[in-house]
Amino acid sequence: MISEAGFSSKCCHDQGQGLSKHVVVVGGGFAGLNAAKGLGGKPNILVTVIDRCNHHLFQPLLYQVAMAALSPAEIAVPIRHILARYRNITVLQDEVCDLDLAGHRVMARNCSLVYDYLILACGVRHSYFGHEEWEEAAPGLKTIEQATEIRRRVLTAFEAAERSRDPEQVRKLLTFVIVGGGPTGVELAGAIGEMSRFTLARDFRNINPKLARIILIEAGPRILSTFAEVLAVKATRDLENLGVQVWTSSKVSRVDNNGCDLGTTRVEAATILWAAGVQAAELGRKLAVPTDPLGRIPVEPCLNLKGHPEVFVAGDLAHFTHGRAKPLPGLAPVALQQGRWIARNILRKNAGEKPLPFHYLDKGQLATIGRGRAIIQLGRLRGSGLFAWLIWLSTHIYYLVGFKNRLFVTMQWAWSFFSFNRGARLIVNKEWRFYRPTPAADIRQPGGKGL
Amino acid sequence: MISEAGFSSKCCHDQGQGLSKHVVVVGGGFAGLNAAKGLGGKPNILVTVIDRCNHHLFQPLLYQVAMAALSPAEIAVPIRHILARYRNITVLQDEVCDLDLAGHRVMARNCSLVYDYLILACGVRHSYFGHEEWEEAAPGLKTIEQATEIRRRVLTAFEAAERSRDPEQVRKLLTFVIVGGGPTGVELAGAIGEMSRFTLARDFRNINPKLARIILIEAGPRILSTFAEVLAVKATRDLENLGVQVWTSSKVSRVDNNGCDLGTTRVEAATILWAAGVQAAELGRKLAVPTDPLGRIPVEPCLNLKGHPEVFVAGDLAHFTHGRAKPLPGLAPVALQQGRWIARNILRKNAGEKPLPFHYLDKGQLATIGRGRAIIQLGRLRGSGLFAWLIWLSTHIYYLVGFKNRLFVTMQWAWSFFSFNRGARLIVNKEWRFYRPTPAADIRQPGGKGL
Repeated sequence: MISEAGFSSKCCHDQGQGLSKHVVVVGGGFAGLNAAKGLGGKPNILVTVIDRCNHHLFQPLLYQVAMAALSPAEIAVPIRHILARYRNITVLQDEVCDLDLAGHRVMARNCSLVYDYLILACGVRHSYFGHEEWEEAAPGLKTIEQATEIRRRVLTAFEAAERSRDPEQVRKLLTFVIVGGGPTGVELAGAIGEMSRFTLARDFRNINPKLARIILIEAGPRILSTFAEVLAVKATRDLENLGVQVWTSSKVSRVDNNGCDLGTTRVEAATILWAAGVQAAELGRKLAVPTDPLGRIPVEPCLNLKGHPEVFVAGDLAHFTHGRAKPLPGLAPVALQQGRWIARNILRKNAGEKPLPFHYLDKGQLATIGRGRAIIQLGRLRGSGLFAWLIWLSTHIYYLVGFKNRLFVTMQWAWSFFSFNRGARLIVNKEWRFYRPTPAADIRQPGGKGL
Repeated sequence: MISEAGFSSKCCHDQGQGLSKHVVVVGGGFAGLNAAKGLGGKPNILVTVIDRCNHHLFQPLLYQVAMAALSPAEIAVPIRHILARYRNITVLQDEVCDLDLAGHRVMARNCSLVYDYLILACGVRHSYFGHEEWEEAAPGLKTIEQATEIRRRVLTAFEAAERSRDPEQVRKLLTFVIVGGGPTGVELAGAIGEMSRFTLARDFRNINPKLARIILIEAGPRILSTFAEVLAVKATRDLENLGVQVWTSSKVSRVDNNGCDLGTTRVEAATILWAAGVQAAELGRKLAVPTDPLGRIPVEPCLNLKGHPEVFVAGDLAHFTHGRAKPLPGLAPVALQQGRWIARNILRKNAGEKPLPFHYLDKGQLATIGRGRAIIQLGRLRGSGLFAWLIWLSTHIYYLVGFKNRLFVTMQWAWSFFSFNRGARLIVNKEWRFYRPTPAADIRQPGGKGL
C-alpha cells in the first residue's frame, strides 16, 4: 500500500517539501492530461496523475480503430510517456474508488493519496438508459477494448457470412445496426459503408460485401442534432450514398443477440453498435452533490466544486453553464481548455492570486462521414464536403498527441485514401490460452449450424 | 452448413467445372499461403484456404509485438486480402476438427469440404512437456493473442511496481523469467533488457526500470543450440550487456503465479514467459500415422503422406529427413519453400507429370539480441554484431508480407532506433464490457495488498 507520505517525500526532495502543494489529477484524458501539462515543471507543485488505463486515448479517432483503419497504439500513448519530461509529475495506473473531500483524500484500489488540490476529470461512459443488459449485444465505443471488440464483431460477421449457405443467416450477418445519430454513430455508419463498399468488395467469393445493410437509428427527428439542420441533411445524403439507411424518429425498444425491436418493427442483425447515450463516471456520485440528469457535476465559474475551492472538475464530467443557455458539450476542445484553465488557476492560487472564471473559446464542431465527406460548423459559418473534410483531417492530425503518432496516422490515412485499403483488419480473439481448462468442448460437429 | 458441392459450383463456373481439381489448404502460415499463391490463377485449379485466424502472421517478428515495439496489425494481414487477386482462391475462417482421408474430406466447425488434393500446413503450438497447467502462469508466444497478453503482463508488472511500496513485492514484479534459450527466448530476453534500460528508464518515479532482473533459463548446456558455439557465446555476452542473466543447464521443475523452481532453487517472479518447446498441431493425430516425438508427420521426398500421393504436409508440421542427418528445422524459409514446392508438384501432377522430390535451399539462420546485435550462420559462414543485425533487418523487411507493412515496420524501426522509444506500449484489458454481470465485486479496499 502506498501511503501519502511515501509519495510526497518521494518526488519533491529537491523542491523544498514544506512549500510544495500536491495536486492529484484523476483521469488522463484531454482534461487531466492538459491540467498536468500546465503544472509540469512548475516550482512548489507536485502532481500525481492517476488513471485506470496506462494510456491517454485520442477518443475522436476511436471509431477508426473500431473500423480497422488504425491500430490501437496509433491513437493511444502511455500517459507516463507523455509526461515523462516533467520530473514533478508521477503517473500511477490505478482505479480510484472513493473520495474523502473532508480529509482531502483519494482512495484507489491499491493506494491512497492526500491532496492539496484535486482535479476530477474521469469523463463519461456510454449509457443504455437503464438497459445495461443490452451491452453484451450492443457494445458502446469509449475504450480501446470496446473498439477492438467492435472490430472483431464486424469483421467476424463478414467471415461467418462467407461461410454460411443459409440466405436468411447471411442477410442477418450482413445487417449492421448503429443506434444513435450523433457524431460517433454517423462516423461508425459511414465507416462500415465505406468498408463494405470499397475495402472488402474484392476479398470475398460467396458474398457481396457491397450488399451489406447498414441502418443508423436515431430517436430524435434528425441526426446530428447539435449541428444546423442543413448540415444534418447533407450528412444524411452522404450516408445514403454510402448505402446507409437513416431511420430517424425511431426508438429502440429491445436489443438482443439476434437483432433489435423498434416498437413493432423487428430488425434481424448480427451486429448492433451503441452510440446513443452517455452517463458521467461513477466517481462523480461520491461527491454527494446534486448532479444533472447525465450525472455530471455542476461547477462554479472557476471550474471548482461549490464550497470546495480546492476541488476542480473538468471535461465531460463537468456541467458548466455560466452565461450560457446550454451546458458546454462533451467535446475534446472543452476538456482541453478546461484542463489548461484549472492548471492556471491552481498556479494563481499558489501565488496568492485570485482564480479566474473559465472562458471557453468555441472552435466550432466537426463530424466526418467518410472519404472527402465531412461537415463543419463554427457559429454561423457552415461547410461540408471535401473542404470540411480537409479541415477535419488537419485538425485531428494537429491535435493528435506525439509527433510520431501524427506522422504514422497521416501515412496510414494517405495509404488508405489512395488504396481504399484498411491497415488493421485483424480479428483478435478474447482467449489467449491454448491449454485452457475447458478445452474445445463446444466444438460444433460438422452439420451443426453456422455461427 | 456448407456442402462441398456448394463450394465447387460456386467458384469455378468460368473454368470448366468438370476438369477442375479442388485443393484444400489447411493453415494460412508461410507454407499454406505460399502453396496457395503458387496455385493462384492457374487453370483447372480451385483452391480453398481454411484457417481459424483471419490473418497470416509474420511469426518471426511476433516477439516485437509482445515487447511493444510493433502493433499487431503491422505483422498480421488478412489472408483473404493477400489472396484477393486470385479469383480461383476462396478463403474461409474456420477451424478444421477432423479429416477423412479415405473419403477425401475435411471437416471444420461450420463446414465440410471434399478435396482432390489436401495440403496440411497447420504448424505447431508451444508445449509444456506435459505440464499444460503452467500455461496460465507462463504464456507461450505463437499467436497475436498471446503476444498481446505477454505485452500486457510485462507492462503491467512495471506499473504495479511503480505503485508498490513493498520492496519484496517490487523485486518480484521487476523479475522477468524467460524459459527456453532458443531464438525466441533470446529475442524476448534481449527485448526486455532493452526496454527496461532504454525505453522505460525515464518514465518512472518510484522505481528504476534499469534494475529489472531478467533471467533466461535454458535446460541444455548452452543457448542457441542450433548455432555454432562461438555465436552462442557472442549472444550470451550481448545479452549480459543488456542485463540479462543467462542460466544454462537449468531445468524448470515447477511454475506457478509467483515464480518458478529450478530443482531446489526458487525464483520469485511476477512474469514468466515460455519459449521452451513446441508440439505439432492436434490435427496431425487425425491422420493416424506414426509421428515423431514432437507429433510431426513424416513425409515422403515429394512432401506427400506415405500412401497418399494426394495429401501433402508442409511447414512446421512436416518431419522431412530425406538425405539429412536431422529433420529440417521449423523455420519460415523451410515452410515457404515447401509450400511453393507442393504447389509446383500439384501442377505437375495435374499436367500428368511426375512430382519432384523436395530440395531445400538453405539460406542460413539468424537471431537478433537487440539494437545492432545479431548473429548469422550460413554453413561455415558466421557473423555477429552490427553487420549481422543489418542482414537480419533487411531480410525480415524483405520477407514481410505486403508493401505497406514493409514500409510501416521500417519506419517504426527507424523511429525506435533513433528515439529508443517503442510505439505500442499499450495495456489492453481482456474485458471490454463496462456493465458486466458481476460488477467490481473484487475491488480491493485501500489498505489491501498491491497487485
